[in-house]
Amino acid sequence: MFRSVLCFTLLTFAVPSSAQSSDSPPVVLAIHGGAGTIERGNMTPEREAEYRAALEAALRAGFAVLQEGGSAVDAVAAAIPPMEDAPLFNAGKGAVFTSEASVELDASIMDGATLNAGAVAGVTTIKNPILAARLVMEQSPHVMLTGSGAEAFARQHGLEEVENTYFHTDRRRETLRRVQERERSESGFLQTDPEAWQMTGTVGAVALDQNGHLAAATSTGGMTNKRFGRVGDSPIIAAGTYADDRTCAVSATGHGEYFIRLAIAHDISARMMYLGESVEAAAHTVIHDKLTDLGGTGGVIALDAEGNVAMPFNTSGMYRGTIDAEGNVTVDIYRD
Amino acid sequence: MFRSVLCFTLLTFAVPSSAQSSDSPPVVLAIHGGAGTIERGNMTPEREAEYRAALEAALRAGFAVLQEGGSAVDAVAAAIPPMEDAPLFNAGKGAVFTSEASVELDASIMDGATLNAGAVAGVTTIKNPILAARLVMEQSPHVMLTGSGAEAFARQHGLEEVENTYFHTDRRRETLRRVQERERSESGFLQTDPEAWQMTGTVGAVALDQNGHLAAATSTGGMTNKRFGRVGDSPIIAAGTYADDRTCAVSATGHGEYFIRLAIAHDISARMMYLGESVEAAAHTVIHDKLTDLGGTGGVIALDAEGNVAMPFNTSGMYRGTIDAEGNVTVDIYRD
Repeated sequence: MFRSVLCFTLLTFAVPSSAQSSDSPPVVLAIHGGAGTIERGNMTPEREAEYRAALEAALRAGFAVLQEGGSAVDAVAAAIPPMEDAPLFNAGKGAVFTSEASVELDASIMDGATLNAGAVAGVTTIKNPILAARLVMEQSPHVMLTGSGAEAFARQHGLEEVENTYFHTDRRRETLRRVQERERSESGFLQTDPEAWQMTGTVGAVALDQNGHLAAATSTGGMTNKRFGRVGDSPIIAAGTYADDRTCAVSATGHGEYFIRLAIAHDISARMMYLGESVEAAAHTVIHDKLTDLGGTGGVIALDAEGNVAMPFNTSGMYRGTIDAEGNVTVDIYRD
Repeated sequence: MFRSVLCFTLLTFAVPSSAQSSDSPPVVLAIHGGAGTIERGNMTPEREAEYRAALEAALRAGFAVLQEGGSAVDAVAAAIPPMEDAPLFNAGKGAVFTSEASVELDASIMDGATLNAGAVAGVTTIKNPILAARLVMEQSPHVMLTGSGAEAFARQHGLEEVENTYFHTDRRRETLRRVQERERSESGFLQTDPEAWQMTGTVGAVALDQNGHLAAATSTGGMTNKRFGRVGDSPIIAAGTYADDRTCAVSATGHGEYFIRLAIAHDISARMMYLGESVEAAAHTVIHDKLTDLGGTGGVIALDAEGNVAMPFNTSGMYRGTIDAEGNVTVDIYRD
């Protein structure tokens, strides 16, 4: 169960608020495109440029909403679809394949102002699962809808549907082939701890709007070669996503089972609320102590109501970026 | 969103440990059979006797395991099936109907010693979903499996399967009829906040074993007339179920959406860990302040590693019981 994981440094900073009056909090948006084994040696300059451009596009899409006075929920719901639509990430188009070479998607969203939340799990035809999660939050009395039921609900509300093949990419098909080849050479996948690279690419966003409200959202295809209707942390409120105006907004990425067991997103919020920790301290402890000690890998983006952002992860990389109140974009990929 | 809910008194006590050496903690088992609108005026003496007998049978089944030196996980996994098999409760046989007059079951289990956890959601053919949740915890690297995938996994491990009609009862069919009649007379179910009685009957157990380990388990049929693959809090680790030897074991029952949004089970654990609150204080605050303030109804059973049990709820009743180290059973139903 327990295995050693390198502990890396914490990225944390406050985004300048000079573009706004000193009374209002700065609007801030932070996103991730997944944590995992992401190393310079395996990345071409062209590929890296693609990732950087996709992250910047997502940041600008969410920021445009905040600039126009939109809510934090509006902003995260605007930042996620460009990443779902980009084949680079493990969400929407380009999501990883299940053991049966299809795509099953999970997503969730939470409004820190009301603690309302919505999630979908195991959907196969909704082009942008995050929009379905938002519909569940805003147009149903429920928090979580699953499978074909969730699809029927989204259809009733006119959400765009696609064939499952829309999500398929050759790159992910090759990954599935490699994983299944490894599986055949071992005693069986279910005896094997899935490797971090099987899960890289979950996307997420956290936002702070001009009214001081927070929101978080996460979308994923889960784990390559997943089977048996496996659901990870991304659609689980408290594990992959949490937002509470009194503490922080969190979106997680990594080996989902560990994030569920530790209730990672809620735990960061709880440490801030009950211990009075800063978002940096809380996120750092939960990722670098609790997650790492249990043997889990991954990271989070966490944002408090003052605009402070923490992005700790214990893998070699995490696609991530922020945009400040003046529209300045920062995008990073590697640990160092 | 916010509505007033009566705040009721907290049941809390330490179970005597006289049957054991003073060095070891007392073995303790507590169970619930659901919180909701449960009033003396609506209960016949015969019906009440049936509930009391079923709760006592479940307590004795779990306690027998603890007496033989079994683990807390063994104990909760032994206490839940008798309640799943009894048609009285909204779990297994006798679970509530979906909008399509079928039964979809959810369950989860967590081991406080290891933070391992397992859950199944939306299963329709597994006779005892809590045993499937345990299989997921112990025989897979995953935490949550859903739908037909979860059933396939359970089948591979030889778990007993039944036709969906095995779960059906006339009583629950009548409840569905009433709910759907009400729905037709209104503008639409999804605009309506489901009522507490639609959800009464979830079952749960928490146990403390002779080695001082805690475990929690929850099993449910969810909400009458549920649709769109709705999943409540019962299979969600941190919402309906949580266990950590350092704090407590919790199983929840009630209006699941609120329990997810507040991460009720994990929040009780977090308050104990970070605020140093007792299990009584933490459970009381989370149910009577946080859940009630948000407009949610329900309750929890919570047990700490010293054998202290708290059973707060803000509804008119909660089927509940405990068994102490000497085998003395206490069963209660109503608030007063």
